[in-house]
Amino acid sequence: MSREPVDRIDARRLDEADIDALAIGASILGTGGGGNPYIGSLRAKQLLRSGGIIEVVPLEALAPDAVVVSVGGIGAPVVGIEKIEKGDECLQALRALEDYLGRPADAVIAAEIGGSNSIEPMITAAQAGIPVVDADGMGRAFPEVQMCTYFIYGHRPSPSAIADEKGNRVLYAQVKDMYWLERLARTTAVDMGAAAGFALAPMRGDFLQRFAVPGTVTQCLELGQAVARARAERRNVVEEVRVSQGGVRLFDGKVTDVRRELKGGFAVGRVRLEGTDANSGEKAEIDIQNENLVFRREGVVEASVPDLIIVLDADTGLSITTEVLRFGLRVSVLALPCHALLRTPEALEVIGPASFGYPEIAYRPLARERSDDATLRR
Amino acid sequence: MSREPVDRIDARRLDEADIDALAIGASILGTGGGGNPYIGSLRAKQLLRSGGIIEVVPLEALAPDAVVVSVGGIGAPVVGIEKIEKGDECLQALRALEDYLGRPADAVIAAEIGGSNSIEPMITAAQAGIPVVDADGMGRAFPEVQMCTYFIYGHRPSPSAIADEKGNRVLYAQVKDMYWLERLARTTAVDMGAAAGFALAPMRGDFLQRFAVPGTVTQCLELGQAVARARAERRNVVEEVRVSQGGVRLFDGKVTDVRRELKGGFAVGRVRLEGTDANSGEKAEIDIQNENLVFRREGVVEASVPDLIIVLDADTGLSITTEVLRFGLRVSVLALPCHALLRTPEALEVIGPASFGYPEIAYRPLARERSDDATLRR
Repeated sequence: MSREPVDRIDARRLDEADIDALAIGASILGTGGGGNPYIGSLRAKQLLRSGGIIEVVPLEALAPDAVVVSVGGIGAPVVGIEKIEKGDECLQALRALEDYLGRPADAVIAAEIGGSNSIEPMITAAQAGIPVVDADGMGRAFPEVQMCTYFIYGHRPSPSAIADEKGNRVLYAQVKDMYWLERLARTTAVDMGAAAGFALAPMRGDFLQRFAVPGTVTQCLELGQAVARARAERRNVVEEVRVSQGGVRLFDGKVTDVRRELKGGFAVGRVRLEGTDANSGEKAEIDIQNENLVFRREGVVEASVPDLIIVLDADTGLSITTEVLRFGLRVSVLALPCHALLRTPEALEVIGPASFGYPEIAYRPLARERSDDATLRR
Repeated sequence: MSREPVDRIDARRLDEADIDALAIGASILGTGGGGNPYIGSLRAKQLLRSGGIIEVVPLEALAPDAVVVSVGGIGAPVVGIEKIEKGDECLQALRALEDYLGRPADAVIAAEIGGSNSIEPMITAAQAGIPVVDADGMGRAFPEVQMCTYFIYGHRPSPSAIADEKGNRVLYAQVKDMYWLERLARTTAVDMGAAAGFALAPMRGDFLQRFAVPGTVTQCLELGQAVARARAERRNVVEEVRVSQGGVRLFDGKVTDVRRELKGGFAVGRVRLEGTDANSGEKAEIDIQNENLVFRREGVVEASVPDLIIVLDADTGLSITTEVLRFGLRVSVLALPCHALLRTPEALEVIGPASFGYPEIAYRPLARERSDDATLRR
């Protein structure tokens, strides 16, 4: 007998508290972008209350020939706050793809664990009655879909599908490459009202076992639980997050200037910070393109993509997305090293500083911090 | 035995002279827009020279259940002049649709006989080895695909396909309505470089026999032959065109002003004319949106969509498209009555003056001219 496409023996069922933790963790891994997971988390909890089941399985649970589809929302994050999605765009996109393939998917997976697209696959999984895989294609958020490990490591761009809440289903039956998929799908998403569901070309279990960033749903949960624990125990949330993830505390300060504009569907800009506490008297800035891209202290680059630059509210420890950054906010800036799959030469060609318009910045991998004294690294 | 999907007994094979005539006729029926058929005619003649066969069949040749696909280019006409298409975008779109349907098309048909989309189905027919039907969905040109009789009379918008010369194939597997198909396909066409091949949802033979504008390929040929005949015999080309089609000579004059801008992929503007000859001392203007929409003499509307407003070069009798209109040009303006299928209440809702932004203009059907003295009608 051939084995089941997905072994559910190690499946973990999420409850409402998990969804809350997941949303907090995902917004931290969103590195300023990825869309706000809050509305998605409400929808996910509503689904759980009405009998839906969200089951998370490890990568190892997939049979080599399991058919896994990555789903998520596509659009401009600034619009995401305003436009409440109906809730089944991703399922519609999945169905469009399944109809085209002539077979159902065995599981769904996130392309981007950071931000709202951590929750979308959970919702789709519950709606479709299939599990969601504990992994993703970024371990964070990036502004474009081709910036995920699936495509960096050779996955084909078609057939993929996009759908909206009005009943439109568009299939990218054949596209020249990922750049074309991104380009065609994004303008169609803007047409659809700047928010649509996206189902990427199906992937095999054995491909994902090699090239997906593993355990990132669990990482989100742990991050969210660390925040909740610190708050309950009245400990410093920023420090709890930093320690739990082996991160580097780059800067404490307040926002003195935010420049931000919409360019071709992306929120592009720069944030200036003035140091407080240990960083008193220092100046820093963060460049953004949906996500935080580059951190400079006194004009010198100290962290950049693909490593994670995370801006947290200094008081609450909650992550601050680039679209809600404003003058006067007191923040802590953390950096986390990205997964090794994001640091290879082929990955850096797609998600290194040069591909975001910074050819002058040579990527210097952030080391995982072992000491509690972040100042040691300077 | 069931009958063949297309009876080829009355098929007419086009030769190179036919293609030349067709291009001239199609540009006249383009009513200022529809794209220039000249480049397409070169490609069609090239195909004929290399052994391709272009076979035109009447509507009556279709079996009730024949599968007919309307193909054409989609994009902005102003770009069409600059961008020479590779030549098989429409075939690629047809193939994408056939793959999706799981069966080949029996024939192709134009959605828009006016302009370049008269020739595209000929090229696709020769490439695919199937006939093209002597009919279309407009009997002229219109700026948007939903403005054709197929959709006015209830044809479904999906599944339709769009393709480019780079290998991209996009399927509109399900769309809410024609407006959404037009909207999604046009921005994708702009993404693809403002010119792409479009294959509309397949139609049945019996549907086309009721709702296609019949005989419009033949009408194009006759128009082109009338122009060629007048030139050969040194007779007045404008008069020959007018008489051959039962048209009305609205105005002779020269262009004194052209305002034209690109708005959302459309060439929108207004042309002012100062009368010469019989119209000396009069002023007129034509509003355009890709095509000539409204003709006013001294501010009073004398012709409007859906009737055909045609601007011909006063000397050569060749049609002048809106994108090459320029100061000083001497022109004759003709009007032709549109087909009855375009004048019904349901048609006027889509292609009447109001739907082009002229709610104040009540459509007054142009009568077919019986007298040689056009001034009698005033």
